[in-house]
Amino acid sequence: MTKLKGAVLIGQSGGPTSVINASALGCIEAALKSENVTKVYGAAHGIKGVLLDCLYDMNQEDPAELALMRYTPSSVLGTCRYKLKDFTEDDTDYKRILEIFKKYDIRYFFYNGGNDSMDTCHKISRYMAENGYECRIMGIPKTIDNDLARTDHCPGYGSAAKYIATSCMEIYRDAKVYGAGSVTVLEIMGRNAGWLTAASAIATWKDMGPDLIYLPEVPFSLDKFIDDITRVYQEKGDVLVAVSEGVVDENGKYILEILSESEKSKDAFGHVQMGGLAAQLAAFANSKIKTKVRGIEFGIIQRCAAHIASETDVNEAYMAGEAAFKAAEAGETAKMVAFERGPGPGYTCNTILVDLADVANYEKKVPREWINEAGNGVLQPFIDYVLPLIQGENKVPMEDGVPRYAKLKKIRAE
Amino acid sequence: MTKLKGAVLIGQSGGPTSVINASALGCIEAALKSENVTKVYGAAHGIKGVLLDCLYDMNQEDPAELALMRYTPSSVLGTCRYKLKDFTEDDTDYKRILEIFKKYDIRYFFYNGGNDSMDTCHKISRYMAENGYECRIMGIPKTIDNDLARTDHCPGYGSAAKYIATSCMEIYRDAKVYGAGSVTVLEIMGRNAGWLTAASAIATWKDMGPDLIYLPEVPFSLDKFIDDITRVYQEKGDVLVAVSEGVVDENGKYILEILSESEKSKDAFGHVQMGGLAAQLAAFANSKIKTKVRGIEFGIIQRCAAHIASETDVNEAYMAGEAAFKAAEAGETAKMVAFERGPGPGYTCNTILVDLADVANYEKKVPREWINEAGNGVLQPFIDYVLPLIQGENKVPMEDGVPRYAKLKKIRAE
Repeated sequence: MTKLKGAVLIGQSGGPTSVINASALGCIEAALKSENVTKVYGAAHGIKGVLLDCLYDMNQEDPAELALMRYTPSSVLGTCRYKLKDFTEDDTDYKRILEIFKKYDIRYFFYNGGNDSMDTCHKISRYMAENGYECRIMGIPKTIDNDLARTDHCPGYGSAAKYIATSCMEIYRDAKVYGAGSVTVLEIMGRNAGWLTAASAIATWKDMGPDLIYLPEVPFSLDKFIDDITRVYQEKGDVLVAVSEGVVDENGKYILEILSESEKSKDAFGHVQMGGLAAQLAAFANSKIKTKVRGIEFGIIQRCAAHIASETDVNEAYMAGEAAFKAAEAGETAKMVAFERGPGPGYTCNTILVDLADVANYEKKVPREWINEAGNGVLQPFIDYVLPLIQGENKVPMEDGVPRYAKLKKIRAE
Repeated sequence: MTKLKGAVLIGQSGGPTSVINASALGCIEAALKSENVTKVYGAAHGIKGVLLDCLYDMNQEDPAELALMRYTPSSVLGTCRYKLKDFTEDDTDYKRILEIFKKYDIRYFFYNGGNDSMDTCHKISRYMAENGYECRIMGIPKTIDNDLARTDHCPGYGSAAKYIATSCMEIYRDAKVYGAGSVTVLEIMGRNAGWLTAASAIATWKDMGPDLIYLPEVPFSLDKFIDDITRVYQEKGDVLVAVSEGVVDENGKYILEILSESEKSKDAFGHVQMGGLAAQLAAFANSKIKTKVRGIEFGIIQRCAAHIASETDVNEAYMAGEAAFKAAEAGETAKMVAFERGPGPGYTCNTILVDLADVANYEKKVPREWINEAGNGVLQPFIDYVLPLIQGENKVPMEDGVPRYAKLKKIRAE
């Protein structure tokens, strides 16, 4: 172990999750305890805060308030979507980042995010290495999409899956309560990977879930969709469908685009539905089956509903942040913390380190063999995979009947 | 007390809530214990089940499974929206209901629902009285809308309010996390009364809620809306708006209708937004302020999210059902159970009985003096009113990481 003394900087990037702050907290608390760490900073809005010289002094936060980050959804430090250019083409941003790193003597940099953030992290680590600035740089994964490579699963996914499964059960109970004939279409996030939509299958496995589940991993056919819902409608009277926002046809064209263009989704009054995919598919169903239809977009609540976060996810997210700091302190750099599932029979999960270069810009999808042959349902191996990730409930303290989420002071570092 | 021996029938009607089954359970468990009760039946899909002679034998249910009704959202017996005609004009349905009541010796009839259900209940009670059939008929209130007259609040409202307040806090954290300029419009249920939308003010009171809140009690002006969001946008950069689905202009015309007609809601590409009010208002905002906009419809999850139901609401809902049975057993009829709030200082709530005739078809609204003068916010008296109703968390048992909701056998009575 090569000792390296200096300041720690952590930034958060990309879309919110319920547990991204648990990861940040794991890293921050470990850093605050370390004798190698002179200061702990948080970047306001990820790398943008670095470029703007807007860092928060985490040493000045009240530890009890900081501890509430464990339960608080959506990046407390603020987030961004900012893609760094290749530094061989334009190194302006990189020069600025190096300048800021020097100004605050940043020797440990942690970036907490998804695919794009790992790409940012990788680029910065290469630039620092090439410019001889000693700084240990680690990626801490987060994404509700669960599409990061080289890890069994991602922090954030279990909580989103738990919210989706629970809400699907509740909506199932609601949608089928009249027994009067209806088609309800639920649109779930996940543009290229179907992990989130697949989580609705947990509800089906509990006998209170979607009758049909469509993931982007299998080409979607509008004709087959109508055949599927007609069959279920005739059999059960009410149909509940879960569909990924990113379903595409056999040519890879988004179904949403096809429906919007073709005006296939005219409703009973001849109006074209211009909403999201759920509304469009519901209207399309209505043009073929004359029944009550309803489109429901789960929307952003699925990525921030910390009130029903998975305790397993929260704990693992914290563990990932802590492991990132400890690995960096021990001399590691240019790595991302990943999860490895134990061989079983019981569920265990350990952190491992993977090269940032192997993670960035690659999307992991739901294996085809976990999806049924007809492409409208999810099989038991997926249930076995996902169940351990949604166990336990978030222990968010309640105050006045609502969650007590963290409110940091965010004192700007000078 | 006049003793009356016979069977009990309970039906559920109208839209789902998180606690409608807690009320039914309170009534059913009290009935099952009573020596005056020969049998307990549940009507499949409310009054429709009576007309179709489709009753479930509740005596055959496993008590432990029945007990899970306490935590289970959305009418386990099934629901309906069925309006009985005036029996002086057409008594077909009433004759059939009387026939079924006689067939099963129904001497106690409980109807668990909102405004329309109390109307149904009232009509049946008058018909039975006029036709000399001895039967005690009681209404058990439920509605997330909280718009029933003669009661301090309605079972179902506290849980919906808790979900809305919590989700608003979570969406606030999400919507403001980029710090990059945005307008987010949240559409909340409540066509004529603003109780649900007002619940978003709990989040604001906790410093994590909508900047602007519009209820249907105050006429909505599109010009003023733009002024309001422009002001907040300039001040804070990000704007979060909560709006009731039922807002109307000064002439009582729905804003949704106005936006749809006028094509005012063309987005940046000139497309007319045809979604719900949230999408339309967001697009309208975008036509005036060039920033990122987003419309979010809370949708049906707000009425069935039992996983974050209010324990106070659950307990009171159960109490209402139990009180209905006990009052009927004691000789009362043609009444609805209502809630009376104690004088304080601490919160207490007792059941009282009110005449069905006084409840049916009247909508209670949010008092004007609980809304700010500008009509874009909610004042402290509302917070004081609502807070006690959202206290405590639903203790739904979890199984495999998701709620274990009741699955009844529903054995059809012969």
